[in-house]
Amino acid sequence: MISQAAVYRGDKTFSLEQKNVQPPGPGEVQIKVAYCGICGTDLHIFLGHMDKRVGFERTIGHEMSGTISATGEGVTGLSTGQRIVVRPLDHCGDCPACNAGHEHICHNLKFIGIDSEGAFQEYWNVPAHTIHVLPEGLDLSHAALIEPLAVACHDVERAKLVKDEDVLVIGGGPIGLLVALVARQAGGNVVISEISETRLAYAAKLGFKTINPKTEDPVERVNALTGNKGADVVFEVSGSQPGVDLMTAAAATRGRIVMVAIHASKPTIDLFQFFWRELELFGARVYRPEDYDTAMRLLNEGVVDCASFITDIKPLGEIQTAFTALTQNPSAIKSMIQIAKD
Amino acid sequence: MISQAAVYRGDKTFSLEQKNVQPPGPGEVQIKVAYCGICGTDLHIFLGHMDKRVGFERTIGHEMSGTISATGEGVTGLSTGQRIVVRPLDHCGDCPACNAGHEHICHNLKFIGIDSEGAFQEYWNVPAHTIHVLPEGLDLSHAALIEPLAVACHDVERAKLVKDEDVLVIGGGPIGLLVALVARQAGGNVVISEISETRLAYAAKLGFKTINPKTEDPVERVNALTGNKGADVVFEVSGSQPGVDLMTAAAATRGRIVMVAIHASKPTIDLFQFFWRELELFGARVYRPEDYDTAMRLLNEGVVDCASFITDIKPLGEIQTAFTALTQNPSAIKSMIQIAKD
Ligand SMILES: [Zn+2]
Ligand SMILES: [Zn+2]
Ligand SMILES: [Zn+2]
Ligand SMILES: [Zn+2]
Repeated sequence: MISQAAVYRGDKTFSLEQKNVQPPGPGEVQIKVAYCGICGTDLHIFLGHMDKRVGFERTIGHEMSGTISATGEGVTGLSTGQRIVVRPLDHCGDCPACNAGHEHICHNLKFIGIDSEGAFQEYWNVPAHTIHVLPEGLDLSHAALIEPLAVACHDVERAKLVKDEDVLVIGGGPIGLLVALVARQAGGNVVISEISETRLAYAAKLGFKTINPKTEDPVERVNALTGNKGADVVFEVSGSQPGVDLMTAAAATRGRIVMVAIHASKPTIDLFQFFWRELELFGARVYRPEDYDTAMRLLNEGVVDCASFITDIKPLGEIQTAFTALTQNPSAIKSMIQIAKD
Repeated sequence: MISQAAVYRGDKTFSLEQKNVQPPGPGEVQIKVAYCGICGTDLHIFLGHMDKRVGFERTIGHEMSGTISATGEGVTGLSTGQRIVVRPLDHCGDCPACNAGHEHICHNLKFIGIDSEGAFQEYWNVPAHTIHVLPEGLDLSHAALIEPLAVACHDVERAKLVKDEDVLVIGGGPIGLLVALVARQAGGNVVISEISETRLAYAAKLGFKTINPKTEDPVERVNALTGNKGADVVFEVSGSQPGVDLMTAAAATRGRIVMVAIHASKPTIDLFQFFWRELELFGARVYRPEDYDTAMRLLNEGVVDCASFITDIKPLGEIQTAFTALTQNPSAIKSMIQIAKD
């Protein structure tokens, strides 16, 4: 059987290639991929920022949904036809992080779809331990949002957010919006700070209070919203120096700040404020299996308005166009690739 | 009755002045001060770094011990002759921090001995709620170490340190050493990083492993000591950029970093490592009443070798000499002023 796959060839280029479908190996499951969203990391790869890690022969993609098409030797509890999503993490099982029970931040973590073959292809083999079976009736295009939603669930879990706390989300891109939705569902009073007017408009449409730090003082606004207390929980999703400045300035005494963004360069930070207000900072990376369970439940409960969140769906044959458009179109929220024909 | 007091007059100068002893006001307690240690903050004041906050008419000093000499109207449960220490914090009782139960980081906190009159004087009136009565038999010169020891207890409490964890203390001055002693008492395997050879020698004498980052790679050393895991808990007590670099580089996955130092300028920080290893950072400032209780207990149990920790004791009349010597003598650990004659 022949399978179509998009292969990243470097320099903003995917080639569409035919390859023989491989049967799943021992402990593996073969997936017929249905949908795969385009993640910010995928865009970084497309733009050539991660060539050293990814190379020029890789099929990427990890925000997926699909159906089990075959199971390999020794796989139990899973069967052909089950609708699933993949938690794309492969850990080593024997490093200080794994030994401490933090497999999701294994020192030798392989991110499937970056460090190994991903989901922008028709048939995809993955380790069986990465599979989560979907609840009945969940639309497969919606299910492709579970991976980024699980990121948001993990971030909120790291914040130990409790009902009625004041929450500031710095950055209103797809992850920031999902964090805001999960935080609101957990009972938080959420305000989103963002500089793009399109994103601000969408955040407002979802019912969030918004701040544009280009046109108003975000600290004054947070103080006004919180009786001068500041935000109990801050999510830094912007990856910017102004975001790092805001996170310490807008946090309440003993405020918990969750570092969601990837800061490639080292920003300056107001450590005095950490001392003075006994602030707390929690790094958050990917997700644990429980976060996937929570994400599936929340998606099924309608916490995400998938119809507006998924701004476009293109077939695999148009992946090149879809990625190119995303580098030029700041108004898209989530662009998705449909892989299996319905 | 006449009382002698040291008054900071600006420009590295104390004047010794006579004043009439004031009776304690309602809710106040009058203390006959026995000993008062010289804190790093006192040195900052002496050097003129805090003139705007302190002014030129202030008696400073807060690392004290003494005896109750009178009690004011409405004071109950305390009586003349009791040997005590003062927890020098006066909170407002009605701010977001106080309302959340974090009185020690009150938004309007007055630090007694900086923002109001301190203990470098023979008779001193303080609010009764600041008093902790000493256990029987504790030497009053030793008891003057309770304030800095309570800082260390608070730092270790913020770290939620558990037995057998690997601990890195960055900075081996008086507070760093006390943090190391409390962390070791809590069951931590402690290593101290410090660049002063005199301090390293004293740390070694106390039985600690030491690292001099001027002569060896501190990250390699921590990894070697921890089976490549890194430190479970890091205390940043140096207040330096290399300290901030080391705290993220030497921390284990999910390592907890406690920010003890006061970073007056904003250092750069490896936030990527926070994300990648899900590091956690906890600001820690002064102490809660429980930390004073713990400090008194630990001091009474002999956790601090007071005989070597207190490097010199001078009478109040020599306060000018004592402060001047400290600005020139990096080998002193804790210099103390004796106020009441025995
Ligand atoms: Zn992603
Ligand atoms: Zn591992
Ligand atoms: Zn002090
Ligand atoms: Zn207060």
